[in-house]
Amino acid sequence: MNQELFTINNLWMMVATILVFIMHLGFASLEAGLTRAKNTVNILFKNTIIPAIGLLTYAFIGFNLMYPGEGFAGGFIGFTGVGISLPEGWNTFAYNEGYTFFTDFIFQAMFAATAATIVSGAVAERIKLGPFITFSILYVGICYPIVGMWKWGGGFLDALDTPFYDFAGSTIVHSVGGWGALVGAFLLGPRLGKYTEHGMRAIPGHSIPMATIGVFLLWFGWFGFNGGSVLSADPGTVSLVFVTTAIAGAAGAFGALITSYIKFRTYDITMVLNGILAGLVGITAGADLMGVGEAAIIGFVGGILVVLGVVFFDRIKIDDPVGAISVHLVGGIWGTLAVGIFGDLAGIQQVISQLIGIAVVGAFCFLTSWLIFFSLKRSIGIRVEEREELEGLDINEHSMQAYPDFAPKD
Amino acid sequence: MNQELFTINNLWMMVATILVFIMHLGFASLEAGLTRAKNTVNILFKNTIIPAIGLLTYAFIGFNLMYPGEGFAGGFIGFTGVGISLPEGWNTFAYNEGYTFFTDFIFQAMFAATAATIVSGAVAERIKLGPFITFSILYVGICYPIVGMWKWGGGFLDALDTPFYDFAGSTIVHSVGGWGALVGAFLLGPRLGKYTEHGMRAIPGHSIPMATIGVFLLWFGWFGFNGGSVLSADPGTVSLVFVTTAIAGAAGAFGALITSYIKFRTYDITMVLNGILAGLVGITAGADLMGVGEAAIIGFVGGILVVLGVVFFDRIKIDDPVGAISVHLVGGIWGTLAVGIFGDLAGIQQVISQLIGIAVVGAFCFLTSWLIFFSLKRSIGIRVEEREELEGLDINEHSMQAYPDFAPKD
Amino acid sequence: MNQELFTINNLWMMVATILVFIMHLGFASLEAGLTRAKNTVNILFKNTIIPAIGLLTYAFIGFNLMYPGEGFAGGFIGFTGVGISLPEGWNTFAYNEGYTFFTDFIFQAMFAATAATIVSGAVAERIKLGPFITFSILYVGICYPIVGMWKWGGGFLDALDTPFYDFAGSTIVHSVGGWGALVGAFLLGPRLGKYTEHGMRAIPGHSIPMATIGVFLLWFGWFGFNGGSVLSADPGTVSLVFVTTAIAGAAGAFGALITSYIKFRTYDITMVLNGILAGLVGITAGADLMGVGEAAIIGFVGGILVVLGVVFFDRIKIDDPVGAISVHLVGGIWGTLAVGIFGDLAGIQQVISQLIGIAVVGAFCFLTSWLIFFSLKRSIGIRVEEREELEGLDINEHSMQAYPDFAPKD
Repeated sequence: MNQELFTINNLWMMVATILVFIMHLGFASLEAGLTRAKNTVNILFKNTIIPAIGLLTYAFIGFNLMYPGEGFAGGFIGFTGVGISLPEGWNTFAYNEGYTFFTDFIFQAMFAATAATIVSGAVAERIKLGPFITFSILYVGICYPIVGMWKWGGGFLDALDTPFYDFAGSTIVHSVGGWGALVGAFLLGPRLGKYTEHGMRAIPGHSIPMATIGVFLLWFGWFGFNGGSVLSADPGTVSLVFVTTAIAGAAGAFGALITSYIKFRTYDITMVLNGILAGLVGITAGADLMGVGEAAIIGFVGGILVVLGVVFFDRIKIDDPVGAISVHLVGGIWGTLAVGIFGDLAGIQQVISQLIGIAVVGAFCFLTSWLIFFSLKRSIGIRVEEREELEGLDINEHSMQAYPDFAPKD
Repeated sequence: MNQELFTINNLWMMVATILVFIMHLGFASLEAGLTRAKNTVNILFKNTIIPAIGLLTYAFIGFNLMYPGEGFAGGFIGFTGVGISLPEGWNTFAYNEGYTFFTDFIFQAMFAATAATIVSGAVAERIKLGPFITFSILYVGICYPIVGMWKWGGGFLDALDTPFYDFAGSTIVHSVGGWGALVGAFLLGPRLGKYTEHGMRAIPGHSIPMATIGVFLLWFGWFGFNGGSVLSADPGTVSLVFVTTAIAGAAGAFGALITSYIKFRTYDITMVLNGILAGLVGITAGADLMGVGEAAIIGFVGGILVVLGVVFFDRIKIDDPVGAISVHLVGGIWGTLAVGIFGDLAGIQQVISQLIGIAVVGAFCFLTSWLIFFSLKRSIGIRVEEREELEGLDINEHSMQAYPDFAPKD
Repeated sequence: MNQELFTINNLWMMVATILVFIMHLGFASLEAGLTRAKNTVNILFKNTIIPAIGLLTYAFIGFNLMYPGEGFAGGFIGFTGVGISLPEGWNTFAYNEGYTFFTDFIFQAMFAATAATIVSGAVAERIKLGPFITFSILYVGICYPIVGMWKWGGGFLDALDTPFYDFAGSTIVHSVGGWGALVGAFLLGPRLGKYTEHGMRAIPGHSIPMATIGVFLLWFGWFGFNGGSVLSADPGTVSLVFVTTAIAGAAGAFGALITSYIKFRTYDITMVLNGILAGLVGITAGADLMGVGEAAIIGFVGGILVVLGVVFFDRIKIDDPVGAISVHLVGGIWGTLAVGIFGDLAGIQQVISQLIGIAVVGAFCFLTSWLIFFSLKRSIGIRVEEREELEGLDINEHSMQAYPDFAPKD
């Protein structure tokens, strides 16, 4: 290691950090676009405050929960105290060959908020703001970093004989969000009028342009999410990750396009958009392990699964306005398994380790998010009143409208 | 060459890659903004699926058509097989001093889809989806890389005594798209109600904010499009290219503002936006050859030409809803010629070579896009039915609306 | 210094340059979102033409006014001629260890336009286009670089015994814009119907999504604004600046959220958005001097101040449609003072120097912007006619509508 390479590595990690940052605008746009105009301020409010929560809680406790240090290697939980304290040599390659302490912190902090952002889409249009903020603080501040520690902090999933592998977080990030989304959507129940005695009623999002902007920004940011997870600017690995990330997203678009055309006989842009995301979630666990063809298959299957997932969750009446559970939970499980099926680590032992990781993380996230949401439901309540839901959360929770100058339809 | 410089160069090329990627969101936003709300889903669908097509076809055949290797130097066409195969030393500076094989591929792949994106704007609001997708696959997958090979793959335009010069693609990228746009718009005919017996009727785009977002994102991405075309992070050249790119865009805004004010006596923001783009297209061929003053002149003239172009094409009743032909074809020809008139290579021999390049590329693109569009027109048809056009493509091709919560005017 | 580090440094400065560039889209989106639909084309027009003005005037005279060279060290004004002339060794580390001459120019040029963009929000919905453009050219082309020279060009504020400190421009950039905004808003008077005999009437912005997109893009770009102001890719300093920038923005969100909830008993997203910006403006002067806790305090107080500022300026009937004065002037003064209160330079001497800088810059900007706006008011007039204001500037100044396909409310 020398100062030049250290500076290059650190520069890439910082650029990757801001690419992950802009993913929060991607989530905000996507979720706002796929929900109704009367709830737009609410969605945007949540997606604006969540990154702020993520950054602050991660500085306060999250980072020290997720990276408690060597004394906790192989463990389940560890914590080294509140707040940020600079280690010796924090700004040299003695700390890390790829980045300074602060780069380490800020790159990871940008990831942290993602978990709650994923949930926000699934519980949209009916959750009360206060309980959602409470959930977000607890889930982002405590649950996410504990799970993260299991793998990235050197915990027990990393210490398996065949270590669980999750390059950039199909499980550690996306399915963590996905489980919270599933529990939240289930405990809240469907939006009024979604499942009627006459069957399922589509509730279209209010702005396809915003949804499209959101997906492009997410894809854009994903080059930092996956590319930064190389933890250096190594030319070979980062460029491979770029290619697999790009190809998987593209293949996801086609997987969803073809599947949705077969099922619905129409060119459904929301399915294509979610297909891209599912392809990206799918490649995330093994973006550094796959070739071009494997990335295309993983992405394509992700695109198929997201369409089937949306249909499935509607069938069991779990109402997920933006398809977040199908994208992040189904896609995350698929991507995690794919590491055992394709690429450099493929093998039955790896499949088993991947299944262990999926199951343990799933159980923990399911239980903790159930605990949080259920406690809130029993105490202060998590769902807005029927009148508020019908009128929209913007007027009732924020005394505002997203588009006050335009006439609503009917 | 050493590992440090190689890593820096590769890093810049990867950053440039994602900047070019986000240009696709720029095109999507611009084209959606400049067309009507009833066709917005359709436009966004096309601009979302085109990058996916570009990435996949480029991996499948495009890259090997565009860079067939030394055996085809000076040639017209070459091909080394389907799919991506890694050469020896692909991730070292033995492959290339500026980037790895995968960086090479992904940077070029991001360019590829641009050609079809440009077309999509000119044929908007009346083309059938299936034929457009077919055209895009063929044009992006085959025609674009063949033209690209002529110059960037070491083909015959690069082998002229005075080599044709096109730094980042005024001709190779933008006019390739522009010719397809011209042919498509001509063969489709104008939108219903555009040219009546009472003269030309303006059909305003439905969202100036989206158009503005689009142009800013395109300008943003252009720093990667032109800056990445340096093919290294060389401080002097890349910073020069940044300056010429910025100045030409700014001067294009003023060229169009002044020209449109003189012609129409109003401050027309769509002309200013297209003026910026025309300035950028104009500087693209010689962004590394010009000084600040020359960049300003090239951009300013580009801005003038785009206004005159829009007026001209309306006069000959070629209906281009977003002005793509004026921006990319007129601007591309201007920029390519400008290399012979201004800057380091100026001279009569260079003008001749530039004219040869413009003519040969033009003839090839005109013929191939005519062949594709005309075959489609005669077989499955390329234009939606009158009723569908009046109702909008969103309802008829996608069974969706872009803004279902808002009341349309009238 | 060696070629490798020079190339890395220059690369980061170029990336930072395009991050600052995209802030102009951030301003455009934010200001358009927080004003009414009938004035949207006008706002976007101004925010599109301002960066063009900034780039061209900075090339023509601004750069040479702001960095007149050593002969003017400690001075009040200097100028070395019109246009860009390349110094010897401009593209080597002989020119500068962090960047080439052209990188120097383009990074600074991207900053320049910011001053006028800030003004544009405060004077929105009632200023005539011509006079605003005139003001912008003079303010960006002349006033801003003179102030910039006082500190960054080695002028008298940099030569104080305890030098005035302003890392990335809380005073030099943001308050320069803020003073112009204050003067412009005052001389124009409030929008019709804003302050009536029945009290202040809220005039909500027409698109919360656009405002949200704007703030995220500004935050995104701020990593380049502050991070690039390190003037090299030094891993320790840039990563520290990233952390303080991120934390201050996040804390600003909470400062404004809590304050506005206490005052208005509602979750006001526009206050949260402006709170983020005020946190960012606040940290800008000392982003390289603070720890995590100090950044959080500075951001949090910025968030409080922006809410109090909005209330205050409404009380004294200075109508600022987007809150620009509270964000950039109040936030800028707070951030500049904070350098004397917190962090590495804290101390009474520093407070005094900071106060001197605030006062001198304030006096100069107040006077020059008064002079420009007042001359324009007395000559060609600065305010549109009552009828034009009521109908909207889009129809009257641009003969266009931003959203022609949608029905306005009422």
